[in-house]
Amino acid sequence: MAPWEEKAKVARDYRDESLSKIDPPLKGLPDPLPLNSQDLPKQYLTDREYELTQNYDPIALLDLLRTKKVTSEELTKAFLRRAALAQYAVNCITELMWDEAIERAKYLDSLSEPIGPLHGLPISIKEYHSFKGKSTHGSYIAWIGGLSRHNVVNETLFSAGCVYYARTTGPQALMHLETINNIYGRTVNPYNRNLTPGGSSGGEAALVGFRGSVLGLGGDIGGSVRAPAGDTGLYGFKPTTGRIPAKGTKNPMVGRDSVGSTQGPLTVSRETINLFMKVILDSEPWRVDPSITVKPWTPEKFSRPLKIAIEWHDGVVKPHPPTTRALKEVAAACAAAGHKVVDWVPLDHAKGWDIVSRLYFPDGGEAVLNLIHESGEPVLPLTEWIINQPGVKNLTMHEYWALCAERDQYRDDYAKHWAATADSSDGEVDVILCPVTPGAAPLHETSKYWPYTSQWNLLDYPGVVFPVTSVDVQKDGKEVGYTPMNEQDRWNYELYEPEKYIGAPISLQIVGRRFMDEKVMAALEIIEKAMGRS
Amino acid sequence: MAPWEEKAKVARDYRDESLSKIDPPLKGLPDPLPLNSQDLPKQYLTDREYELTQNYDPIALLDLLRTKKVTSEELTKAFLRRAALAQYAVNCITELMWDEAIERAKYLDSLSEPIGPLHGLPISIKEYHSFKGKSTHGSYIAWIGGLSRHNVVNETLFSAGCVYYARTTGPQALMHLETINNIYGRTVNPYNRNLTPGGSSGGEAALVGFRGSVLGLGGDIGGSVRAPAGDTGLYGFKPTTGRIPAKGTKNPMVGRDSVGSTQGPLTVSRETINLFMKVILDSEPWRVDPSITVKPWTPEKFSRPLKIAIEWHDGVVKPHPPTTRALKEVAAACAAAGHKVVDWVPLDHAKGWDIVSRLYFPDGGEAVLNLIHESGEPVLPLTEWIINQPGVKNLTMHEYWALCAERDQYRDDYAKHWAATADSSDGEVDVILCPVTPGAAPLHETSKYWPYTSQWNLLDYPGVVFPVTSVDVQKDGKEVGYTPMNEQDRWNYELYEPEKYIGAPISLQIVGRRFMDEKVMAALEIIEKAMGRS
Repeated sequence: MAPWEEKAKVARDYRDESLSKIDPPLKGLPDPLPLNSQDLPKQYLTDREYELTQNYDPIALLDLLRTKKVTSEELTKAFLRRAALAQYAVNCITELMWDEAIERAKYLDSLSEPIGPLHGLPISIKEYHSFKGKSTHGSYIAWIGGLSRHNVVNETLFSAGCVYYARTTGPQALMHLETINNIYGRTVNPYNRNLTPGGSSGGEAALVGFRGSVLGLGGDIGGSVRAPAGDTGLYGFKPTTGRIPAKGTKNPMVGRDSVGSTQGPLTVSRETINLFMKVILDSEPWRVDPSITVKPWTPEKFSRPLKIAIEWHDGVVKPHPPTTRALKEVAAACAAAGHKVVDWVPLDHAKGWDIVSRLYFPDGGEAVLNLIHESGEPVLPLTEWIINQPGVKNLTMHEYWALCAERDQYRDDYAKHWAATADSSDGEVDVILCPVTPGAAPLHETSKYWPYTSQWNLLDYPGVVFPVTSVDVQKDGKEVGYTPMNEQDRWNYELYEPEKYIGAPISLQIVGRRFMDEKVMAALEIIEKAMGRS
Repeated sequence: MAPWEEKAKVARDYRDESLSKIDPPLKGLPDPLPLNSQDLPKQYLTDREYELTQNYDPIALLDLLRTKKVTSEELTKAFLRRAALAQYAVNCITELMWDEAIERAKYLDSLSEPIGPLHGLPISIKEYHSFKGKSTHGSYIAWIGGLSRHNVVNETLFSAGCVYYARTTGPQALMHLETINNIYGRTVNPYNRNLTPGGSSGGEAALVGFRGSVLGLGGDIGGSVRAPAGDTGLYGFKPTTGRIPAKGTKNPMVGRDSVGSTQGPLTVSRETINLFMKVILDSEPWRVDPSITVKPWTPEKFSRPLKIAIEWHDGVVKPHPPTTRALKEVAAACAAAGHKVVDWVPLDHAKGWDIVSRLYFPDGGEAVLNLIHESGEPVLPLTEWIINQPGVKNLTMHEYWALCAERDQYRDDYAKHWAATADSSDGEVDVILCPVTPGAAPLHETSKYWPYTSQWNLLDYPGVVFPVTSVDVQKDGKEVGYTPMNEQDRWNYELYEPEKYIGAPISLQIVGRRFMDEKVMAALEIIEKAMGRS
């Protein structure tokens, strides 16, 4: 066993030890595992555990807690056991916090008054996000056993009364839209194990998609909240950077501010996102993190029909049939509800990818590669793929400024492009409705087209992902006779056969202009209502 | 004559040609000029011109315009003539726009309804800020005859109805807190020609300090609005970056976003700043400049006493006696008015300067020096001084990230330092009252201590400068027996003799936490009221 493998085993042993605390243990687990994991919880949990973890969103759970219909201890144990089952099924856990979580839950149960708006609610969190008093490796073997950084969002949720009980996996370098690393291997999709749950917050997505959690914390610089949320049928939100803290994650590129990252929630209902944002911003995080914009969470309501622009495709890669069907269904529902539905004209998204991919690694990926090489662990294919994007290199300062100037010019151009939609009788486009990825959850190792999410990181526009439908082998046949627009499009087109994606959720994304976070959330409500949801 | 001198002469000839349009011309101008220029306008302007330019702030002038007590044409001509006199007295003009300004004023006068809130108001603007349809050199000889960039603030003020009539000088590289360049030579202080009007917006400060303008537009990355405003007895405001657009200036470091710059007004009254901010933000500049925070201008009012922290000195360099006297007088007035007055404890401002000076030139100053060398013009001493600050070098990408991480850590530390003031019975400090520069307007070539302003650029805290008093030879004797804290402090101490600074205004600065722009302006109102002003 190579030294890096020994070190990786230390982290796995730690995880396994944490899972062994589960009491009562899970028994008679299936081997081999089914393709779709969604039926396992009912079989292996008690009815009460199943009910508590299956039927409620965080807002409903908080109501049960407040009205003493459940204790935090009972609820936490139910999620701990379901999370342990999730680990068995989809390999998403780095640590289960059995003792600590139950102790915390008991403490909260013992108080006569709630300590905050999340009093007693179990929450999961991506390992990469650091955790007070624990070590964090950020999926780098060299960092196993290393210290955590201080994370304002974690602390805020803790102060609001949550119970942390599980930490989850991320991919090597945290720069895949899948989740695989040399420590824990591959995390798979709870709807179809041949598919990825996405990444980099794929451990969260797999766990919440399995309902081993109902609220998880991820982060997004290229789609790392939205893609996994979309791949697993969840709600996921990437706010404008600087609305909520991004600090505390464990990565080797501290000080790189070429393109902003942000934390964000993966959860099971729309209103949980609003709650999450309110809890974070009510805490006035700018008082301790001065990178945060002083702007309280102020929900919006529309008193007029929306003008919704549909991005059918981005001019480079056309999404697979189920995604196009989802766009059509939602567009039709919106039009039927009286909203104005128009086509979005993408402004050179290929250029957007060219710029943002270089902004990710202005050192040519050296910091990441050095840290990987430090332990001797292998560089994984998707790590190599992203670092080897054309144009990525270790830049001189003047080359870097030129790149930042290109970025700023592109942002200006896009702002004017959007503003120009106001030059029509029905006014400016409110939001764009668009794909999250160019299809359902990708087959493993095929997540090589980021621009449906990374475009909005480059522009720093908020985006929320919501579930729409799922792959339907009947309805979603391969498009025959399609002539791909280019080689990337051909590659994506050829990936698709409906049978390969069976069971996969199909999600869409709503995007607004920079800082229009509340507007995006208000638009989601309106669009879901148009879809007949509450 | 060297080629660079010939090129410089082209720009000076252009300026002189623009000044020759003045009608009627100014006659019998004094030679030599007096030390203090403040008595000249009464001697060389008509009574009406003097009244219009001397007695009103922009808000009062807008009222005169609205009520037709003056036409924009008459007002513009008065400011054009006073600006021409200012040029003679203090050398602050790069171009006087006689024909265009009068044509614009006549057009505005011809309309039955005002086109915006600044309808008919003459406004001056720093040459560096670019001007539609004109060339901009940014004080670089290599750029004489070069194109202007698009400037959102200029366009916004223009759409609001202003009349541009004068463009003003800046220093070489725009990185002096004085104003001297190889094209126009030195701009001097209208209160004492042996002193600088500050910089880099020193042309604006000299012009507005002479009342050749009542509202000028400058920019600030290290003190370039606040220091000149303070040196000439004006109100000057540096908002948090991203509140109003910074784009459009002509400089060779486009894409450098290590430390933010912002535009800001230099003017003759507090409420003009509020008007300026409201006009800019009412235009929703974020629709075309996506770097702007979506945050309307929302004036605050305090319904409780303020907690004001006095920064008597920054722990490195103690200000000269007139500044300390001003701090004492204002602190006493605030205390007498019932406000809580405490001492500010600076958190390692020497480190702040170390960080921010390196952030200014992460390429070691190469872009600036290359552009200077391109024409062959000499590198001026204050340019050399700022680029040669310890630690300034052309950084590799990883060195640059390390510097940005240092910056972010320092910002975090300062945020926590400020937040910690809340741990007292009287709550968190609202604002800091502090010097603008370590004394009155500096003697030429001595502006070598920036941290009283640059500290707040590093932290991105808003700061407003306001006039307090002026140097009083009787009251402001040199402090005898003072033991300097260090070599920088000794250097500053030894500069001071009250007679050298005779006539110089003394100003102070109010600083608030990041994004607390409206709070800083509200605090200024309260503090001025405590001082017995309106």
